[in-house]
Amino acid sequence: MTASSLSIGIVQCSLGDAREINVARVEGLIREAAGRGAEIILTPELFEGRYFPQTEDERAFDLAAPLDSHPTLGRMQALADELGVVLPISLFERAGQVYYNSVVTIDADGKQLGVYRKSHIPDGPGYEEKFYFRPGDTGFRAWKTRHGIIGVGICWDQWFPEAARSMALQGAEALLYPTAIGSEPEAPDEDSQAAWRRVMVGHAVANAMPVAAANRIGEEAGLTFYGSSFVCDQRGNLCAELGRDDEGVAAASFDRDALRRYRANWGFFRDRRPELYGKLTGADPLD
Amino acid sequence: MTASSLSIGIVQCSLGDAREINVARVEGLIREAAGRGAEIILTPELFEGRYFPQTEDERAFDLAAPLDSHPTLGRMQALADELGVVLPISLFERAGQVYYNSVVTIDADGKQLGVYRKSHIPDGPGYEEKFYFRPGDTGFRAWKTRHGIIGVGICWDQWFPEAARSMALQGAEALLYPTAIGSEPEAPDEDSQAAWRRVMVGHAVANAMPVAAANRIGEEAGLTFYGSSFVCDQRGNLCAELGRDDEGVAAASFDRDALRRYRANWGFFRDRRPELYGKLTGADPLD
Repeated sequence: MTASSLSIGIVQCSLGDAREINVARVEGLIREAAGRGAEIILTPELFEGRYFPQTEDERAFDLAAPLDSHPTLGRMQALADELGVVLPISLFERAGQVYYNSVVTIDADGKQLGVYRKSHIPDGPGYEEKFYFRPGDTGFRAWKTRHGIIGVGICWDQWFPEAARSMALQGAEALLYPTAIGSEPEAPDEDSQAAWRRVMVGHAVANAMPVAAANRIGEEAGLTFYGSSFVCDQRGNLCAELGRDDEGVAAASFDRDALRRYRANWGFFRDRRPELYGKLTGADPLD
Repeated sequence: MTASSLSIGIVQCSLGDAREINVARVEGLIREAAGRGAEIILTPELFEGRYFPQTEDERAFDLAAPLDSHPTLGRMQALADELGVVLPISLFERAGQVYYNSVVTIDADGKQLGVYRKSHIPDGPGYEEKFYFRPGDTGFRAWKTRHGIIGVGICWDQWFPEAARSMALQGAEALLYPTAIGSEPEAPDEDSQAAWRRVMVGHAVANAMPVAAANRIGEEAGLTFYGSSFVCDQRGNLCAELGRDDEGVAAASFDRDALRRYRANWGFFRDRRPELYGKLTGADPLD
């Protein structure tokens, strides 16, 4: 790897109730991805435990912790420093009276670059996130890491072109999404896997940059998480992927200079018309 | 077809220098699509002639005309009225001292609903549109036609998630894009066909609505237009498509009530965060 490469690894695994087992499993897979040369390593959403938002249960709030005393963050900072890798870490954050679904991005020296709080909160059968999470107040961010500038959204954010574009406009060279998505318990014939990939592939093409997602696998109380984690390139071609049941890692590497030329050559950022985009920030129509 | 269906037809063909031959060919294909039940029929960008923006030639400005005396518009209005179909018609508009790449959407009774002027103007080898077209000043629109509410962008607009979202937010039930795209004369190994479809499939998923594009085919002065016109559904599944060389029509029909339920059920419009989207309408960063 050189300073001009952008090397993204993805981690996919099943996760259970025991935090220590989950974190050890994820740490092992991060080490494996680093061993393959990945310098920015993406892990699944809320990997410390089961996907608790399946149901609305006040006891689950006890899983949250403030960032300054979070049980997993220090360990991941030490790991990032040891391996020299960038780690966007998804966790359940308590902040005063409220709770956020957050990502702390850790640079390759182990230092925290900052927190992003999930902006778009889903709600539906099996995904009762509005019960737990206050919609994030940080806005979208692009993080200048030692291994490239990355935008990190969280799961449901991945369906929103506005989030992708906001991160791209701040200089992101790739977009990353920790994820927890699977079957629809009350609509067993629905399978959103293809649409889930397509919308992110769309962000890759529209913003002319690689996109990566890391999802969990396995069944949790009747909900089957479908894995299918991937990295695609700036044209939307799949470069690395894992299946619906694979536990493991995958990685893809890109030339940063070639990506910059590609973005400039396509002219999307040259040709945008912000003065015509007022509807995107306006109120909903009355009709 | 019932009042609750949204039935989209697409027309794909080669086009030459002779306006009368092109318009007659397109009219024949519109009749064919209407015969198959299509109620909203999309034709290629600037179908009256060759794709003149391949080169920068002042004589090509003579092809433009004001909307009130445009040589093809009246004929297309009569055709829409006769067949009872909606026709978004792409044309080269002269407006005072300036020139636009425009679409006039004609309702099923032959009346003009209004004009949209292409907002995003490409520029590169073989696609010298900035020489001809002033960037549009109309903003994005959704047209309430007798057969459904449609958003119509024009070609390069199709790469911009902002355009798609703006039309969706105004109530569009489907997004349509007349197109002229093909090979890259100075980069013969480049083939943008897959990325071109992917970015629009992304709009379909992100906005939970069908998307259609109609492109031309054939070679014009070394540039090969790749057809591949399509209609996809709200999940991004291809419902109707034409090949790289097919001259003809294709069509797909959707249940408007089912589409509305799908859009509501997915909650994308419920969960948007306009207060966080300021970057989309802001100035470019200095760094």
